[in-house]
Amino acid sequence: MIKAGVVGASGYTGVELLRILSGHPGIEVEVATAATYAGTRISELYTSLEGFYDDDFVEYSVDAIASVCEVAFVGLPHGESMGVVDELLDAGLKVVDLSADFRFKSAALYEEIYGFEHKSPLLLDHAVYGLPEAWREEVAGAKLVAVPGCYPTAALLGLMPLARAGLISGMVIIDAKSGVSGAGRKLALASHFPQASDNMAPYGVGSHRHQPEMVERLDMLGLGGELLFVPHLAPMDRGILATMYVTLARQVGQDELHAIYADTYLDETFVKVLPPDSFPETKAVRGSNNCHIAVAAPEGGGPAVVMSVIDNLVKGASGGAVQCMNLMCGLPEATGLIGPGIFP
Amino acid sequence: MIKAGVVGASGYTGVELLRILSGHPGIEVEVATAATYAGTRISELYTSLEGFYDDDFVEYSVDAIASVCEVAFVGLPHGESMGVVDELLDAGLKVVDLSADFRFKSAALYEEIYGFEHKSPLLLDHAVYGLPEAWREEVAGAKLVAVPGCYPTAALLGLMPLARAGLISGMVIIDAKSGVSGAGRKLALASHFPQASDNMAPYGVGSHRHQPEMVERLDMLGLGGELLFVPHLAPMDRGILATMYVTLARQVGQDELHAIYADTYLDETFVKVLPPDSFPETKAVRGSNNCHIAVAAPEGGGPAVVMSVIDNLVKGASGGAVQCMNLMCGLPEATGLIGPGIFP
Amino acid sequence: MIKAGVVGASGYTGVELLRILSGHPGIEVEVATAATYAGTRISELYTSLEGFYDDDFVEYSVDAIASVCEVAFVGLPHGESMGVVDELLDAGLKVVDLSADFRFKSAALYEEIYGFEHKSPLLLDHAVYGLPEAWREEVAGAKLVAVPGCYPTAALLGLMPLARAGLISGMVIIDAKSGVSGAGRKLALASHFPQASDNMAPYGVGSHRHQPEMVERLDMLGLGGELLFVPHLAPMDRGILATMYVTLARQVGQDELHAIYADTYLDETFVKVLPPDSFPETKAVRGSNNCHIAVAAPEGGGPAVVMSVIDNLVKGASGGAVQCMNLMCGLPEATGLIGPGIFP
Amino acid sequence: MIKAGVVGASGYTGVELLRILSGHPGIEVEVATAATYAGTRISELYTSLEGFYDDDFVEYSVDAIASVCEVAFVGLPHGESMGVVDELLDAGLKVVDLSADFRFKSAALYEEIYGFEHKSPLLLDHAVYGLPEAWREEVAGAKLVAVPGCYPTAALLGLMPLARAGLISGMVIIDAKSGVSGAGRKLALASHFPQASDNMAPYGVGSHRHQPEMVERLDMLGLGGELLFVPHLAPMDRGILATMYVTLARQVGQDELHAIYADTYLDETFVKVLPPDSFPETKAVRGSNNCHIAVAAPEGGGPAVVMSVIDNLVKGASGGAVQCMNLMCGLPEATGLIGPGIFP
Repeated sequence: MIKAGVVGASGYTGVELLRILSGHPGIEVEVATAATYAGTRISELYTSLEGFYDDDFVEYSVDAIASVCEVAFVGLPHGESMGVVDELLDAGLKVVDLSADFRFKSAALYEEIYGFEHKSPLLLDHAVYGLPEAWREEVAGAKLVAVPGCYPTAALLGLMPLARAGLISGMVIIDAKSGVSGAGRKLALASHFPQASDNMAPYGVGSHRHQPEMVERLDMLGLGGELLFVPHLAPMDRGILATMYVTLARQVGQDELHAIYADTYLDETFVKVLPPDSFPETKAVRGSNNCHIAVAAPEGGGPAVVMSVIDNLVKGASGGAVQCMNLMCGLPEATGLIGPGIFP
Repeated sequence: MIKAGVVGASGYTGVELLRILSGHPGIEVEVATAATYAGTRISELYTSLEGFYDDDFVEYSVDAIASVCEVAFVGLPHGESMGVVDELLDAGLKVVDLSADFRFKSAALYEEIYGFEHKSPLLLDHAVYGLPEAWREEVAGAKLVAVPGCYPTAALLGLMPLARAGLISGMVIIDAKSGVSGAGRKLALASHFPQASDNMAPYGVGSHRHQPEMVERLDMLGLGGELLFVPHLAPMDRGILATMYVTLARQVGQDELHAIYADTYLDETFVKVLPPDSFPETKAVRGSNNCHIAVAAPEGGGPAVVMSVIDNLVKGASGGAVQCMNLMCGLPEATGLIGPGIFP
Repeated sequence: MIKAGVVGASGYTGVELLRILSGHPGIEVEVATAATYAGTRISELYTSLEGFYDDDFVEYSVDAIASVCEVAFVGLPHGESMGVVDELLDAGLKVVDLSADFRFKSAALYEEIYGFEHKSPLLLDHAVYGLPEAWREEVAGAKLVAVPGCYPTAALLGLMPLARAGLISGMVIIDAKSGVSGAGRKLALASHFPQASDNMAPYGVGSHRHQPEMVERLDMLGLGGELLFVPHLAPMDRGILATMYVTLARQVGQDELHAIYADTYLDETFVKVLPPDSFPETKAVRGSNNCHIAVAAPEGGGPAVVMSVIDNLVKGASGGAVQCMNLMCGLPEATGLIGPGIFP
Repeated sequence: MIKAGVVGASGYTGVELLRILSGHPGIEVEVATAATYAGTRISELYTSLEGFYDDDFVEYSVDAIASVCEVAFVGLPHGESMGVVDELLDAGLKVVDLSADFRFKSAALYEEIYGFEHKSPLLLDHAVYGLPEAWREEVAGAKLVAVPGCYPTAALLGLMPLARAGLISGMVIIDAKSGVSGAGRKLALASHFPQASDNMAPYGVGSHRHQPEMVERLDMLGLGGELLFVPHLAPMDRGILATMYVTLARQVGQDELHAIYADTYLDETFVKVLPPDSFPETKAVRGSNNCHIAVAAPEGGGPAVVMSVIDNLVKGASGGAVQCMNLMCGLPEATGLIGPGIFP
């Protein structure tokens, strides 16, 4: 068993990592750190872990991790990961980071978007963007992987086949709907039950921090157009549905469109292209590492409609992180991650 | 008090009409019909009406209505309204119909979309589309008003200012999210709680029956482009959020865009244009006849984003119906309808 | 129109007061204060109030209120109401207070339960408990009314008929389920959407602060037994369902039991006793000032089961407050409060 | 791998069995039957199973099952299981039945409660009630196991320690709250989203069919009192919370009460007794086979409060079924079932 540390384990991506790794046959958690909750029993904070993690959260120190672990998952807030990741790499660990700190190629762009000075700009060249469906070999050879944001995961998996085929030309509109857990465990009015329940609202129209992340990655994949990202908060726990409207370079019929997707993802374990005339639903992937994609080519021209769903905490965060770590450790990529969503 | 009949009162638009009219100072319900529930106490079917409507639903007959009522609301399924509306008009009543039967100008188009032969095609010329914000005088002078579909209400209020200004040029994408009550009281798997809860899904991409209704009406308002409508089911009771992406005929800045909307709706009681940089939320209009609209002109070109929210059962159905009936009866348009949404 | 001030108007009971009073024909809000949000437009904080309250929240001062208002509603946190209420009474206003500060007859008991020293113990003799169904004349003659807690409102309306009839003998168990808005607008993990959604949990078993409030009032009404109160958090916005198990002094059949309730509430506008074999549901009273009660006398002895539902923010707080103020001002008790719940 | 058939696989217990068994290392599904959906691809009906079960549902015949399977799970409606179970046993299979057909010892009692004549009364002597925590050896030696109802599972696990200790004396009240999936996939108004969402309601007070099932089993475990069961529908997908009020034979303090539970369940994999002063929540066990129990002994006498949560579709149905089958097949009892709940 490969021994892992989880740094910043008290948030929702942390508890989800603990859940996933509790059933993983090749990686086990030895240390879970949490600044605020050091000294608190893990299963006291998350009753779901009763009987699975009954030790305490500990304070972070590089030695506490490095003395017992070969690999580390870092679930710290944006801006706090940088220094910790640096230390862990220096101590010889492989690291998967769930923050945005190592997602961008350019420190300047990161600083503009997130507002923190980047402390480890040189590392950006070595960090690999953790979307194995697009950059599998790079992930497998990496010491440091940055897990994509939850929205970019749903969007990139949905757009990659068209981008690679050079078929995107003109505006791409991403109308995404996210469950509230995407905003994390941090208390906020937008995540307050009486505010969020029985409610739908857009936010951050054209200004969300995941938009430039998508743009940077889509450019690498061959995007030929512009992108507008409009996120919405939906009254559900988990799940992202990205409905994407793609202006195509040429008329593409329903059959060809579907074939492009089916071919691209033929050998992928986690990305499932639904049959023609199907529509995906977030609940079908809830609690799983699966991504479901459907495509529609409305008659008479108009944009192609690509619909992609993931569980934001699994494929969009902790599940994606484990998938990357499996590759980095030479384990079968899908180890500990295979299974249907929890429906209903 | 003007005496009203409600035909087909056992569905969700029916109970909502009863609720609204229970507090209306100028119109009162004398007869409520329901085929399946004739003989059942109204407040047994809808406990919320306990103490308000403790009489029984009765079977429909034109005489039962016409002998005591001056006006009628018809909440029958599509295809069943036609004959009934005909009879009621012949009996001298003013009628507001909530089905699709009289929404289209062309019987052929109706028949193509809804699959029923139209029994009263001549009436289509006299029927007025019940969106007072667009056709107020026509509604006021009508004997028969067809209440718009819930999605078209949200969409048309959001697009009318741009359409009238001749600013729409090219593709309009309407990504709409609806609460489950929009599908009515009829049992269906898509409305089954374990299916709909904690879930988001698109449906009827490009093929929903409200798309041609929107197109017909937008053409009358000056639309210069094409339209793609993609509805989604959201895990909430009530509410429609239409997020609309509009290709503009020319670059329009945020200030001008906002001014166009503010000017259009300056004197409207129920349509409220939110301040710049605000976003609407469905819960803010829940249980009310209000429509909230916000607009965003993303920097660097790209489509304008228009966001419109209504309560599908109020402004999108029964509230809109009462608003029309007020006009038809010479009452102040907003009678019995003014009030904030139920928040939280 | 009687001019009213709302002190502490930015919480959920505040916005609900503003909503109710926006449609009240006899009382209108002149001033709304909020410490944190002074200077913020009311309808910016609560978009639902757009077009209804577009002025700013102001800072509280007794002069600001007293110079323009005859009556005041105080929606401040427990412990903060006392001083303010004192001042407003001294300035000649009639006051309805929504906190717990004036609910108890004994300052010592209040201090034990809420942990604050009572600053105005002499006022406790003059404060009237604002449950008009039990103490109507006292409310009508009061200068200061303390609105009951939301749980006590549901429980007392459910138990009063049996208590008055001297039929309670032995343990009364109140198993209550509340929507999350009952915990207010203050951010807390228990009210965080990902925590509260799709979840049910008990809390404060036998130790909730509403238990002694219920006990004090039930004793006044003739309770002959002991009481155990177990609250639960339910994944809904609004609504309290109290399921109560009452050990009776003697065998009482279903017919007699129902008759006791029907007789007690025969002339009440807001309390509706459902027919035998019916069960109440919270959604039937959502957004209304109604209370629905059903009773069951299980065969073969055993406790009577009394089920009572209210909307915690209306009958359980702001609606109850307006009902009291109507009485205090000599207006018809139900003014501005009549109407069915918002269903579905 | 032991080959299994799932008879009646298109309902919610069916899809949950398929999900659980998709990750089971010792049992695999060879045949899934469904009367209505024979010929439909399984993953078309349940998109969550895309890539896991892409074969079709088939029609049931004993030969189709018996020719390839050693064991069978029967998920047919009450009254339809009897004949099928008979056939499968005759064909030599071990059977776990999820209906009520074999839960009672007395055919007469079954017939009274469920209204069907029992076709295989002799089998009732051989059927074992599938609650391994109470009857482990019997389950391990059985050819036919009847999985308990979801409510009885939650209630019996909560009451067994007190019943066995002879501490129950007098009334036991079970106030249970269930998610909507407990009512199954069959369309019904009570499960219609606009009806069930944002709503809480009791039903079947004292008359639910699970009450006699609980009584029969608690009598076997030593119950010394009477039982009143009041179920409630809660607006959540999954989960049962049973809050139980138990009149004790003698005063039992918090420490002793907790110790009784901790001792009883010390060696159980799936039943976790929470620390003193904790409360269970349904979401902590969502998607898992775990049962969390907490106990409280309110000061000054009064009933003990026992709170028990399970996922109704897992521990309350399909997970419990697999746990039994593991025992019947000589596999480790917890095979394929260990893991934390999906939180949040």
